[in-house]
Amino acid sequence: MAPYRIALIPGDGIGIPVTEAALAVAAKALPGKLETVTFPWSCDYYLQTGRMMPEDGIETLRGFDAIYLGAVGWPQKVPDSVSLHGLLLPIRKAFVQYANIRPHRLLAGVEGPLRKGGFDILCIRENTEGEYSGAGGRVHQGTANEVAVETAVFTRAGVERILRFGFEQARKRSKRLASVTKSNAQKYSMVFWDEVTKELAAEYPDVAVSHYHIDAIAARMVMAPESLDVVVASNLFGDILTDLGAAIQGGLGFAASANINPDRSAPSMFEPVHGSAPDIAHLGIANPLAAIWSAAMMLEHLGEAEAAARIMTAMEQATAQGIGTVPGQNKTDEITQAVMAALD
Amino acid sequence: MAPYRIALIPGDGIGIPVTEAALAVAAKALPGKLETVTFPWSCDYYLQTGRMMPEDGIETLRGFDAIYLGAVGWPQKVPDSVSLHGLLLPIRKAFVQYANIRPHRLLAGVEGPLRKGGFDILCIRENTEGEYSGAGGRVHQGTANEVAVETAVFTRAGVERILRFGFEQARKRSKRLASVTKSNAQKYSMVFWDEVTKELAAEYPDVAVSHYHIDAIAARMVMAPESLDVVVASNLFGDILTDLGAAIQGGLGFAASANINPDRSAPSMFEPVHGSAPDIAHLGIANPLAAIWSAAMMLEHLGEAEAAARIMTAMEQATAQGIGTVPGQNKTDEITQAVMAALD
Ligand SMILES: CC(C)[C@H](C(=O)O)[C@@H](O)C(=O)O
Ligand SMILES: CC(C)[C@H](C(=O)O)[C@@H](O)C(=O)O
Repeated sequence: MAPYRIALIPGDGIGIPVTEAALAVAAKALPGKLETVTFPWSCDYYLQTGRMMPEDGIETLRGFDAIYLGAVGWPQKVPDSVSLHGLLLPIRKAFVQYANIRPHRLLAGVEGPLRKGGFDILCIRENTEGEYSGAGGRVHQGTANEVAVETAVFTRAGVERILRFGFEQARKRSKRLASVTKSNAQKYSMVFWDEVTKELAAEYPDVAVSHYHIDAIAARMVMAPESLDVVVASNLFGDILTDLGAAIQGGLGFAASANINPDRSAPSMFEPVHGSAPDIAHLGIANPLAAIWSAAMMLEHLGEAEAAARIMTAMEQATAQGIGTVPGQNKTDEITQAVMAALD
Repeated sequence: MAPYRIALIPGDGIGIPVTEAALAVAAKALPGKLETVTFPWSCDYYLQTGRMMPEDGIETLRGFDAIYLGAVGWPQKVPDSVSLHGLLLPIRKAFVQYANIRPHRLLAGVEGPLRKGGFDILCIRENTEGEYSGAGGRVHQGTANEVAVETAVFTRAGVERILRFGFEQARKRSKRLASVTKSNAQKYSMVFWDEVTKELAAEYPDVAVSHYHIDAIAARMVMAPESLDVVVASNLFGDILTDLGAAIQGGLGFAASANINPDRSAPSMFEPVHGSAPDIAHLGIANPLAAIWSAAMMLEHLGEAEAAARIMTAMEQATAQGIGTVPGQNKTDEITQAVMAALD
């Protein structure tokens, strides 16, 4: 069989070392079956070319089996609003990666900030529209009279497909689905989301649906995370909940994610939840576990579930020994080597 | 001096018992100086009259020195999008209560869900516009082609006044201000907020400003809450962060809030952060501490700082003895009596 073709976009800051770590582990788990092409698209690339990726960047990526992205953004070089809208967000949208999947549980040996452990949450985040639609503008700019508007756009197709995806995931797990809105304050978008949820619930009578407001479920992630299983949320709410999910896992260094095109009409993209962390970029202490976990999700998506499972086991063998469990305590290389060794 | 005239809106569910508790404590701390008028505006009122408050409700309230609200909403009776837009949200807007102030710290004797304690955060939430503007609509309703839009509206005056309020609060405390946006994804509204923040920062050179994205600061509230002091955020982001603040305090039963009109051109409103909790409304176990704390904030706003401080001391005398510190463990009355006794 021909090798899988992976487009690597290490990006900025710690994106570079964690991508290297993740791909080294993936290559070891699946020897000879990954062919990678690296694209230097990043804030530095922007400073040189005036673009985050070439004009035909999307078309270039389209031919790959999967995309692996480290992290994008370096606000001291390029405003985040430019760098993210020039690379990460357009890829998610162009390739209809409408389901952003983020698992949250404590790896073996990781303590986490909560007194209570024992949660296992799968967040399903809408990834192409909603509060990230990029629709809006500014009027009377720079005057005392200025007004800025930002419009969240929710389409029937967009809401329905992510909710269906959530219901399907719930079916595969505990058959419990938590849907997140803020329909007590946002009476157009979120009431619409609630209505579609109720409609679909009739098609999935075996799935028990709970409705939470974003504020209440954020508190619940901290107070009673064990009460949640599959959580489905809009783009913004999913963003917030998954950073919270990362926090209760012990930190951003542990949270993996997959931007999935469920129809496989275009490549999916895999990336750790964390950002580029310019402040620690040169210290060699970035935790590669989120990135390695994301690589495991990539292999699983490519149909290599066995190799993906071996990576997860190896990761937890390393963390169970206390390697990579406390932010900053181990070097990136040391953690990567421990995972590699456990793969033997 | 004439007594202070307080409009009481107990609202729904546990709003009723906690309002009673809070006002009993306030009356004891300031004997003979509070005159209350109770308004039965609630979801039951809606079922009887078709409105959450009478048409002249706002005008009726305008004559009071302060408003005390328990909690509004009972989704099984009236959709939240109707009940909140019919009572709580219009009061905040009509009376230009643009600063929603919510303190987060552990009361004596309360453990909280985090391994680490020792935080003291003051959240300042914009309370009149932004993501709660109520601007939006639905097109092709009920069809496969439906689109729902919800527009966040940020005005220069609205953003500037809340940020100034934040800077002033920071001056009174640690001189550190955290401003919360999501400017990497919302390039109109949140970039505007960041720009105004940077502009004002020049006027407050003694205040150190940090910029956080909402996802990152939500994680920080859990990972390192001790690193935060005064936090200023938009309506939605402040809503989410203050439920999280409540969570790390030990639960919604501990989080107080004040909806302040800083110019005193109209009454301010005081309310616990928690909702009406219909599920536990008849059990007599609602924690009245958030409500009592909110009453203390009301007395402070009325110029009765000494009485407010006595309430806070009494509350912590009760909690230090373990009363009201574990959700559901003590009856509402028992907790109220303990605080009353400590006031003697
Ligand atoms: C960098 C940012 C635009 C991005 C997002 O908000 O989607 C990130 O926080 C994430 O969660 O993937
Ligand atoms: C009830 C709801 C509309 C309200 C809000 O979101 O403002 C509440 O959550 C709060 O925090 O006061």
